[in-house]
Amino acid sequence: MMVTQTLPLTDISADACTSSLARAAIAPEHAETLARSLKALADPARLRIISIVAAHAAAEACVCDLTDQLTLSQPTISHHLKVLVDAGFLTRVKRGTWSYYSLVPGSLNSVAGVLAAV
Amino acid sequence: MMVTQTLPLTDISADACTSSLARAAIAPEHAETLARSLKALADPARLRIISIVAAHAAAEACVCDLTDQLTLSQPTISHHLKVLVDAGFLTRVKRGTWSYYSLVPGSLNSVAGVLAAV
Repeated sequence: MMVTQTLPLTDISADACTSSLARAAIAPEHAETLARSLKALADPARLRIISIVAAHAAAEACVCDLTDQLTLSQPTISHHLKVLVDAGFLTRVKRGTWSYYSLVPGSLNSVAGVLAAV
Repeated sequence: MMVTQTLPLTDISADACTSSLARAAIAPEHAETLARSLKALADPARLRIISIVAAHAAAEACVCDLTDQLTLSQPTISHHLKVLVDAGFLTRVKRGTWSYYSLVPGSLNSVAGVLAAV
């Protein structure tokens, strides 16, 4: 098991079917977990990174693909990528000189499932 | 037309069917709008307020209902309520001495729809 800075999204998805926000008052600890995931997403640059990665061929992109499309420095993009990896939205694989990022399947749906009213 | 601090969620829902994050790279201005809505949600107290309001009888609650369940001061709760009203998640109706808050139908689904992978 990897230790990450934030709780992995699986903690949310486990509750997605039983703890929709609009069905019953959520427990304080679930609110903390969901807020952490939403904070990781609540940034325009990070939302654009997710959508660029997801729309890329094979849903995988390297930092070079992102610097081409975002008007941000490489260290800034690397910071945003780290936040998204730590929050469980992206995974990182190193091949040669480049790191490649892909969307964790189901990770956005997990958050969407909790938010959606039943 | 009302001028609000943040863009209303209808701006997001209009794009929910065509601009899923995982389908195509979203435009910078859409990323800004979605990030603002997610920021309004990305707080444990605000998530709990939404779920308490939604789970309450007739999906409507007054501040007194919230102070009973949250260990927060009334001014702090009022601040969180204002953020959620400004972001288009809650509406406020004043009856007598109390203000009553209810969930804007479809507002959470609008955000969920954009996040969900297609």
